[in-house]
Amino acid sequence: MLFLVRMDVNLPADMPAEEAAAIKAVEKAYSQDLQQQGKWRHIWRVVGEYSNYSVFDAESNDDLHNMLSGLPLFRYMDISVTPLAKHASDVN
Amino acid sequence: MLFLVRMDVNLPADMPAEEAAAIKAVEKAYSQDLQQQGKWRHIWRVVGEYSNYSVFDAESNDDLHNMLSGLPLFRYMDISVTPLAKHASDVN
Amino acid sequence: MLFLVRMDVNLPADMPAEEAAAIKAVEKAYSQDLQQQGKWRHIWRVVGEYSNYSVFDAESNDDLHNMLSGLPLFRYMDISVTPLAKHASDVN
Amino acid sequence: MLFLVRMDVNLPADMPAEEAAAIKAVEKAYSQDLQQQGKWRHIWRVVGEYSNYSVFDAESNDDLHNMLSGLPLFRYMDISVTPLAKHASDVN
Amino acid sequence: MLFLVRMDVNLPADMPAEEAAAIKAVEKAYSQDLQQQGKWRHIWRVVGEYSNYSVFDAESNDDLHNMLSGLPLFRYMDISVTPLAKHASDVN
Amino acid sequence: MLFLVRMDVNLPADMPAEEAAAIKAVEKAYSQDLQQQGKWRHIWRVVGEYSNYSVFDAESNDDLHNMLSGLPLFRYMDISVTPLAKHASDVN
Amino acid sequence: MLFLVRMDVNLPADMPAEEAAAIKAVEKAYSQDLQQQGKWRHIWRVVGEYSNYSVFDAESNDDLHNMLSGLPLFRYMDISVTPLAKHASDVN
Amino acid sequence: MLFLVRMDVNLPADMPAEEAAAIKAVEKAYSQDLQQQGKWRHIWRVVGEYSNYSVFDAESNDDLHNMLSGLPLFRYMDISVTPLAKHASDVN
Amino acid sequence: MLFLVRMDVNLPADMPAEEAAAIKAVEKAYSQDLQQQGKWRHIWRVVGEYSNYSVFDAESNDDLHNMLSGLPLFRYMDISVTPLAKHASDVN
Amino acid sequence: MLFLVRMDVNLPADMPAEEAAAIKAVEKAYSQDLQQQGKWRHIWRVVGEYSNYSVFDAESNDDLHNMLSGLPLFRYMDISVTPLAKHASDVN
Repeated sequence: MLFLVRMDVNLPADMPAEEAAAIKAVEKAYSQDLQQQGKWRHIWRVVGEYSNYSVFDAESNDDLHNMLSGLPLFRYMDISVTPLAKHASDVN
Repeated sequence: MLFLVRMDVNLPADMPAEEAAAIKAVEKAYSQDLQQQGKWRHIWRVVGEYSNYSVFDAESNDDLHNMLSGLPLFRYMDISVTPLAKHASDVN
Repeated sequence: MLFLVRMDVNLPADMPAEEAAAIKAVEKAYSQDLQQQGKWRHIWRVVGEYSNYSVFDAESNDDLHNMLSGLPLFRYMDISVTPLAKHASDVN
Repeated sequence: MLFLVRMDVNLPADMPAEEAAAIKAVEKAYSQDLQQQGKWRHIWRVVGEYSNYSVFDAESNDDLHNMLSGLPLFRYMDISVTPLAKHASDVN
Repeated sequence: MLFLVRMDVNLPADMPAEEAAAIKAVEKAYSQDLQQQGKWRHIWRVVGEYSNYSVFDAESNDDLHNMLSGLPLFRYMDISVTPLAKHASDVN
Repeated sequence: MLFLVRMDVNLPADMPAEEAAAIKAVEKAYSQDLQQQGKWRHIWRVVGEYSNYSVFDAESNDDLHNMLSGLPLFRYMDISVTPLAKHASDVN
Repeated sequence: MLFLVRMDVNLPADMPAEEAAAIKAVEKAYSQDLQQQGKWRHIWRVVGEYSNYSVFDAESNDDLHNMLSGLPLFRYMDISVTPLAKHASDVN
Repeated sequence: MLFLVRMDVNLPADMPAEEAAAIKAVEKAYSQDLQQQGKWRHIWRVVGEYSNYSVFDAESNDDLHNMLSGLPLFRYMDISVTPLAKHASDVN
Repeated sequence: MLFLVRMDVNLPADMPAEEAAAIKAVEKAYSQDLQQQGKWRHIWRVVGEYSNYSVFDAESNDDLHNMLSGLPLFRYMDISVTPLAKHASDVN
Repeated sequence: MLFLVRMDVNLPADMPAEEAAAIKAVEKAYSQDLQQQGKWRHIWRVVGEYSNYSVFDAESNDDLHNMLSGLPLFRYMDISVTPLAKHASDVN
């Protein structure tokens, strides 16, 4: 099941640079692991913003919530989730 | 170049059913042709709404505008366009 | 899988009363059938508005979209869908 | 009387982890007690967000306000309340 | 139980004047009857707008919905309902 | 002259409890004094929120502003003011 | 007492030109009469929009509402009213 | 003096195609005349929307309003105007 | 040239009272100087809010920006600017 | 390819003046370098706000994102990007 997910990241202005770099590294590894599993199908950078649009393939709502709430940057994120269905015009 | 595009369709309440069906058929053919060309990469139905999220691969802004403004349903649509860039965590 | 769905109904001001009554009757039967199947778990009236909040139990996003887009009143509705997951505090 | 309540939790970024864990534990106990009493009928996690939708069964507006303002996390929450009535199509 | 209710009236631009006057007269009688019963405690005109703020005293959410959905102008209204509780500073 | 006033209170998360309690006590006394004078006609708690709806009877806009800007909690409040007029259906 | 009033005019797209011109002429006369009385202190055109910002000097909320609801274009307007008080820095 | 102007065009759904084409032709001539005069400095199409962003060089607010309100499509437009000043980093 | 300007002031909650008083005094002097010059035509307090509506008479957009960005409180303000033109009904 | 970009800058209230001045100087140099390269075509100050509207000429979405995310003030900015296409009326 596919979900479009927008993530806007707002790190506290006073977070030390090293701490920010460390948490971003863990976030990257977490994301790439899920991508390798085929669960995190797409991740695109929103031009000009510290935000991304992603497409997740989750087995259930709970599966998706676990993946998202497990994000290292979760507590610094505003996330919106849009459930997707197959479009009648989709050639795939 | 990738763009995330949201399309919300609002057909006039008093449009005759046949006219609506005809224009939707033309819209479907138009979309599937662009999908076959690889320009319209993804099209997903937004659950519960007469809307879709799509990902287009356009050569330029003008190319994208021509594709979108050429949609048979264009005049009945609210469209928003978000330019996408490659994400640093993207494994592809 | 549970989804919270809000439906706001906007019938055209010039729709004849009989036509409105007829379509509402079909809507009611459609809803009650899904409730009997256990798919439409809850339906509550939003006080003061021609709107409802409902909880659906769907097998997938596509299943939910089919149920919602099949509503007789679908074309007169603004619908928003919020995917729900199990809450850690939920005693059930 | 039923009310749909959305709660969005925003803990201060600089709250120590132990303090956060402690207050969440008290919140969980508070919630489960009300659930056992049948007052807090449903609690669902909003997928991807530190938020929940709940349904309360309160004797009055004051009863509901006391329950909500008594939440340990109350001061860190944005809460919206929607009074619900019986829907004409409700089979229950 | 008290509820603050805002009503914004939007009559169709092409509604004949006599029809508008007739429905307003029925609305006025309906309102004044509920005021006499003590259910419609206050009704104030929002300066500059075809809107009012009212305070209802209802026995339940269902009671309030019946009163509101029974308004002759109901189908031409946008209504929002805010449940009210006793304020700790209220001297009454 | 009547005004509907909504007050949303946002105390800083790091305000010591005693300071908060002290300022609330002064606020309560301030409010009750104006209520006794008949200037602060109604004060209701918005269910689930640290907010109230109030109705003030002020001699002028300046009179109202002085009352509101004199609130001990004024600097921690978001306030909106809606001037009210007599409604044609008001039986009082 | 001063009030800032914004008026946005939305004439129906299918209103015949003569009817529009006639109602605008009546509106102009109505406005200029109130300006001559000193009640309608200022009227400015919002650049690029069929809207104006005005400042009214009214004896009461009811006085202002009567002036505004008496506008010939009232039923085609969205109006917002902001009560104004004397500013401590005002040299007048 | 420069102004950024956004124009969103909403032609009535039932406007005959010839009428729409005719008014667009007059609009184009009107625009190109002002561009030739150097008053309408830039005009860009918003990708995916029947909207444009333009930059006007006007002698005054009144000059700008006359240009905008003189647009043949003016009554079918939502227009927002942002006054621009010289930026300290501007190399021109 | 006239501009309607709304200023909302948000001083940091932890700014010492003396510092706030000092900066407000400088702000007042700055404002009154421009009022004396006839550039700051009107300044009104928005009832219930730490905000004002003002009307400026500026020679150009740049002139206005210099006046506004020179405000001592500028960095603590949210400012919106609406360019005004002469209204056809204005008797002055 | 042209993009309209709005940048709103929100420096932390407690940032020391020297630090702010230093980062602004680096920002100015960064901007002027891109302007010299013809990539940053226009930069205008939004009157009354610590914001600008700019027009960028980028080779691709990624090119634009690199330019924007490389801004020294990037982490203190809210940025929105609107892709622009050639307008049919554009005389250039």
